[in-house]
Parts: sequence; structure tokens; C-alpha cells
Amino acid sequence: MQIIRFMTKEKKMAWGTGYDGHTATLLRGDIFSKFLDTGQQISVQTLLPPIQPAAIFCIGLNYRLHAQETGMALPEYPVVFMKNPGSVIAHGDAIEIPFSCAKIPEVDYEAELGVILKSPVKNVSEARALDHVLGYTCANDVSARRWQKNGGGGQWVKGKSFDTFCPFGPALVTPDEVGDPQDLSVECILNGKTMQKGHTSDMIFSVARIIAYLSQSATLLPGTLILTGTPSGVGFTRKPPVYLTPGDVMETRIEKLGALENRVVSENIETLG
Amino acid sequence: MQIIRFMTKEKKMAWGTGYDGHTATLLRGDIFSKFLDTGQQISVQTLLPPIQPAAIFCIGLNYRLHAQETGMALPEYPVVFMKNPGSVIAHGDAIEIPFSCAKIPEVDYEAELGVILKSPVKNVSEARALDHVLGYTCANDVSARRWQKNGGGGQWVKGKSFDTFCPFGPALVTPDEVGDPQDLSVECILNGKTMQKGHTSDMIFSVARIIAYLSQSATLLPGTLILTGTPSGVGFTRKPPVYLTPGDVMETRIEKLGALENRVVSENIETLG
Repeated sequence: MQIIRFMTKEKKMAWGTGYDGHTATLLRGDIFSKFLDTGQQISVQTLLPPIQPAAIFCIGLNYRLHAQETGMALPEYPVVFMKNPGSVIAHGDAIEIPFSCAKIPEVDYEAELGVILKSPVKNVSEARALDHVLGYTCANDVSARRWQKNGGGGQWVKGKSFDTFCPFGPALVTPDEVGDPQDLSVECILNGKTMQKGHTSDMIFSVARIIAYLSQSATLLPGTLILTGTPSGVGFTRKPPVYLTPGDVMETRIEKLGALENRVVSENIETLG
Repeated sequence: MQIIRFMTKEKKMAWGTGYDGHTATLLRGDIFSKFLDTGQQISVQTLLPPIQPAAIFCIGLNYRLHAQETGMALPEYPVVFMKNPGSVIAHGDAIEIPFSCAKIPEVDYEAELGVILKSPVKNVSEARALDHVLGYTCANDVSARRWQKNGGGGQWVKGKSFDTFCPFGPALVTPDEVGDPQDLSVECILNGKTMQKGHTSDMIFSVARIIAYLSQSATLLPGTLILTGTPSGVGFTRKPPVYLTPGDVMETRIEKLGALENRVVSENIETLG
């Protein structure tokens, strides 16, 4: 099942399925526990990210070819960082280039398979890890490269946490429709040109292994979103480098999960304090 | 005002003030917007962390003397990382040494001033930043040093995110009672012995500067908890090193904010998957 979250005309938050770009069939209940397909067709006023994440974990350098292109050694353990949960946007929302990144371009795309957890998970084995997945989604770990490198003393959080830097959606797709998460193609298409084209079979650490690792002596809360790393072809490794610029249209496309489209704009002056 | 969060005998979550170790005066409403002191004295069944954080940001190397003891250069910008929101515990709860840290001790204490944000904040100036503070609290950025160094490819998140690694409380104390956040002594006392004794005037980046920095082009959600860095005296820099061991009692004491006490135990076998 493909599940979207949206605002109704009455400005109420709702979940739906069978989204056609305008309407969806209303789901009643809580998608984390029990819900019912009402069969009722209603208008989607504003599409939202499929969930508001309880936390966002990200895995760096998780595709062999991408690790090579960055010039970094293959990691022995998963490289784990987090993004601010305030950074999420939906399919169709704009990615904003922060003021501090406007003069010298540095904002890069990273198409990634997103995994959404259903139940609290702790010390789960690799064999049982996928039992806790609510669904999969297209995600993009948008990154400001100079901030990532210099802005946090070697820690990546700040350069990864600007508003709009975590687009995901359009829907979450339940595991029964996805099957093996290690058998999906992952693409990033910028202004119609394919920039990344990878496959989840190239992951160094599988989705199950990542969940098991993250849950080691740690409770992952329901609604945790995990970005599982990006394939090769990111902008900063290209010659010449390619960075996101206002006017661009970025598409993150994953087999069986649809296409997440976000245009790029400058940060809105009204948000300046 | 000192505000605690707790479970009542009826297993309802509540906020209270005037906590004496057993009872508190019930606050009705939402501490993030409007609330009322009911004057009603009720029994505190289980103390909870003052809030469930929307996100936990941490600042590394923010005290001059601590930066020196680690042998790292004074940072030019705040060193920013995050902790899993599943890692929080309350005053009186036990810190658990993860299985993977049991054989070779590595779990360290870091007494820190915690700051809890009230309203969404974005692009706030340093001059206005403290207007968004709901309260201050004693916090401890418990850290597994080998995991921090090796477990995340140089990223600190995994080594900082084990369950029970974010004790904070006992209460949040409102800014009117605290005054200048740069004029507070910060101590960590282990088994009755003072291990850290610093002062927030030694911070490289002030609380206001940290909030302004984190909010640059990024929305900090209400209920964001910020750990503002630790003074000198942490365990791994001592000769010989001092690490937390089952049976220890750790106290994090901050002027005007009270004392946060947590004993140390081994991870509970029942949580193994």
C-alpha cells in the first residue's frame, strides 16, 4: 500500500492511499498501529511528508562506488549522523538554498532509500530487523558541503540540517509491496539529466544490518526515519562540480517507490530574524 | 519556577512544581504555551525527564579548559552533533553500561548546562535568542569513547546515543529564576568526589550564540534540548582514565538548577533481541 499524509480542506491532518495528484482515499486510525481504509475519496489540499520523524538517522558512504568517488576508505562500521527533524519537506515543496550558501554554491543532492520504523526497536538481530519497518520512501540527504566540512568541527550535523534539506515521499510504501530492499534502483535526476544511478545491492551495509546496528543498546523510536546512504554521482565529486541552484528541478526516483520532485529556490527573506 | 514532569498514580503524565521528592503542585495546561498552577498537591509516582525532546543538539569542546585537555584545537565554529531522543532518562534513573562497553571500560561523564527551547526558532539574532528559552536544566552527555572514536567513521552520534546516555533534570528551571546563563557553576561528582568543576563564563560560544548559530537557516522545534558542552575533568583525559562502572553514583550539579543523580548499572539482559 502507498500511504500519503496530507492536509484536508478543513485543515486537518489525514492519511490516505491511492493518491492521484489531487485526491486520495481516506485512511482512518493510526498508521503506526491500526487503521482502516474508509473507501471515502477526499481532496488533498496540501501534501505533507509521509510522517513527522521522531528522529532522522543517516548513513554516510554506504555505496561502494560512492565511497570510492569521495576518496574516503570503505568504512568498517556504518558512518552514522543525524539531521534536525525540522528539516523535512514533502514532494512538491521547494528546497531552499540557505543565505550562507548563496554566494559560493555548495548545496548538493544525495538520493537515498528512506526507511521508516513502525515500533520501538532495541537490540534487534539482523534477521528480525525488517519486521519493524513500516515502509520505504524516496529521500534526499541534501548537504551543504562547506558547512559539512568546516561548519561543525568535522561533525556533519549542521551542514545536513538546514530547513528543506530532508525531502522525502511522496508516499511511504509498505514492505509487502516493496519486497527485498536490497533489490531497488536509486536515481537522482537534475533538470532531466540522470546524475546518480545506483542499486541498493551495492550497499556496504544492508538495511537490516543498519537497523540492527543502530538499535544496538539503543531504542529507535516509532517514526524514526533512516536515510541509508547515497550511490555515486553526487555533485561535489564531479569535474566541474555541480551544485543545486535556484531554478533547478531535482527528482529522486526509486524503483517501486515512485518519484520525489523538488524545485530549488533561494531562502525566503521573511525568515530572517 | 522549577517544573518537573511525572506519572501520577493513575498513570497519567503531568507537570508539577514545588517537588519535594514525593509530591508536587499540579500544573494544568501546556508548559510550552499556557499553564495554571492549580495549588493541588499530588503524589509523584515516577519522575520523568522534564520534557520528551523533539531533538537533542550537543555542542562539543565548548569550554576552553576542556578543549585544552582533549588536545584538540579551539574550534572556530561550534562543533555540533546530535543524540537519539530515545536516549533520555530522568533524575534517579540508572545509566546502563551497554553490553559492548562492558569488557573494556569506556563510558564517560560530561556534565552540561541543558537548554530547552519554547517556540520554533529560525534565524534568530544572538540578542533575541534567549527570548526563546523555556528553561534550563542539569544534563549529562554520557559518551562511549571507543564508539565515539571508531564506531561511526569519525561521526560521534552512535557513541553518544545509547539508551540512558542523556540524563537530564530533575526539573527545568525558568529563565527568570536563572538569570544570566553565563554565570553558573557546573560540577560532576562521582561517588562523592568532584571530577568536573567549571563555570559557564568559560564557554567559548555562549548559550545565545549557540541558539543563534543552530537556528541559522534552520528551524529549531519547540522542545529542542541543547547540551552546551562540558568543562574540563572528563574521565578519558585523566591519568589513569576514569570510566563509569556499575555501582557508581554520578551527580551533575549546576548552580540554581539543583542536582541530577544517576547510579550506574549494567545493561539489562532482557533488552537483548
